Amino acid sequence: MTQNKQTQYDDNNIFAKMLKGEIPYHKVYEDDKTLAFMDIMPQAKGHVLVIPKQKAIDLVDLEPEYAAAVLMTAKKVMQAQRQVFEREGIIQMQLNGSQAGQTVFHYHIHLIPSNIHELSVHAANQADSDELAKMAEQLAAAIDS
Amino acid sequence: MTQNKQTQYDDNNIFAKMLKGEIPYHKVYEDDKTLAFMDIMPQAKGHVLVIPKQKAIDLVDLEPEYAAAVLMTAKKVMQAQRQVFEREGIIQMQLNGSQAGQTVFHYHIHLIPSNIHELSVHAANQADSDELAKMAEQLAAAIDS
Repeated sequence: MTQNKQTQYDDNNIFAKMLKGEIPYHKVYEDDKTLAFMDIMPQAKGHVLVIPKQKAIDLVDLEPEYAAAVLMTAKKVMQAQRQVFEREGIIQMQLNGSQAGQTVFHYHIHLIPSNIHELSVHAANQADSDELAKMAEQLAAAIDS
Repeated sequence: MTQNKQTQYDDNNIFAKMLKGEIPYHKVYEDDKTLAFMDIMPQAKGHVLVIPKQKAIDLVDLEPEYAAAVLMTAKKVMQAQRQVFEREGIIQMQLNGSQAGQTVFHYHIHLIPSNIHELSVHAANQADSDELAKMAEQLAAAIDS
């Protein structure tokens, strides 16, 4: 079968470094199998990423236990986004392959408070770090409540 | 917590009717927990939908066993799409709430052979049924192989 994708996991990709604690991020949620944090190049206000603690490049690599875990974490985050940002509409998206627009080659789910008709560019401008920190706190508090 | 979404599952939504065998569709894959079929309003050639056999409106309703199942079925379908359409890039997307663009209120994952920068409208034109039938056959054969 033709896989036609980047087949070698890079231990120094940015999300791998975050998981190793080598670079800072605005944490929203963490458990033994997943990590959720603010996207620093948000496609909309409140854009969160969820990643598995598994060296998966894309969906093809994802193991069943991590598949369940990332969606259950996404569920928690989405409920918090609905509460904090007072909106119902959340896009869950995950890009497979550079041809689809994937830029970091560690599997990641986008949770974007937006609308499919407004979703355009993958990454626009870097968000203000203080604003991201505040949103991360609000979302984490909503998950804990 | 504010959920602010359609909270009543409609047993007569189009995907519920498909699961009950009341309306036809172009099947790509089926197991005890999931069903995959061609989107008749494709955003790109080869657009497939994966649904759980659970009465879930959106991600908030999805049970862990169905979360794992829909992503594992999505993995099978994506591998088949890469093989049949000879492209690496596949967008996995799932819209939560009408405000995000959700139009059928049974949880469904989109698998779209496209690029985030090309992804625009949710549904454009209805695809030719014969072409969809042929693609469904090709994808089903690739999954079985």
